[in-house]
Amino acid sequence: MEKGKSDDWLTDDEQRAWRTYVDVGTLLLNQLGRDLEPFDLTINDYEILVNLSESPQRRMRMSDLARTTLQSKSRLSHQISRMEKSGLVRRENCESDRRGLFAVLTEDGWETMRRVAPHHVTAVREHFIDLVPTDDQAALRKALTPVVEHLRAARGRI
Amino acid sequence: MEKGKSDDWLTDDEQRAWRTYVDVGTLLLNQLGRDLEPFDLTINDYEILVNLSESPQRRMRMSDLARTTLQSKSRLSHQISRMEKSGLVRRENCESDRRGLFAVLTEDGWETMRRVAPHHVTAVREHFIDLVPTDDQAALRKALTPVVEHLRAARGRI
Repeated sequence: MEKGKSDDWLTDDEQRAWRTYVDVGTLLLNQLGRDLEPFDLTINDYEILVNLSESPQRRMRMSDLARTTLQSKSRLSHQISRMEKSGLVRRENCESDRRGLFAVLTEDGWETMRRVAPHHVTAVREHFIDLVPTDDQAALRKALTPVVEHLRAARGRI
Repeated sequence: MEKGKSDDWLTDDEQRAWRTYVDVGTLLLNQLGRDLEPFDLTINDYEILVNLSESPQRRMRMSDLARTTLQSKSRLSHQISRMEKSGLVRRENCESDRRGLFAVLTEDGWETMRRVAPHHVTAVREHFIDLVPTDDQAALRKALTPVVEHLRAARGRI
């Protein structure tokens, strides 16, 4: 598309910042995904394992898990079904809690998490953290904080 | 997982920078995707429309399009098939060029692009660019440039 058609069009500098941000996102997701392939896990699987493994009794209410992983409930439900088939998690109803269904990490899921986590952290270091000097990490966080706050609020309004 | 198990584990500051980065990515992808829903487009569709509309004769070799959009050739092929069904693009063989297949924007695809682009740019401004002061945009780009260079090089080695 031609530039300058609208006052709202991105300037060259804005375009460069935006493009860099988008490209890192895409490339990083692909790279971290490839690094998890030997373990038969996707990035989404991994994030769920992390969340459950950090929770009391290694379980979370499905609605809390959806909120934490920033997924819709229906997408999370499909995801959990796939992970249930692989034996990593199971669904559980809590008798004393009517607020619904829990996702629970199985013993297999826990062992998988323990095995994979060091590899994933190494990948995050290699492909991101160790490439960004400490000061720039702080600048990155400062730049993105208003965005994350805005997006969380926008999500809450849906 | 417990912290401090390995020297390689992320520090609290690193973890915060990483978490902010990842959360913005997920939230932004969801938000921009929702903003495209009224037009029956996904973010991936939109990116392909942008690339084709900016190319000479509004067409690109499939292999170039895969490289530009950072997708695998097989994933792009599925994507183009879906967009072909919606009438946005078509595949075309070039007689004078044996290096293969092209994806070409249709007249419908071009009209869709012209109609949607201003809305998408407004969304990018509203949910990202206008929330980040100019200096912080520059800092963001500085912080992420070594990452994008590293990831592009890693991708080239596959």
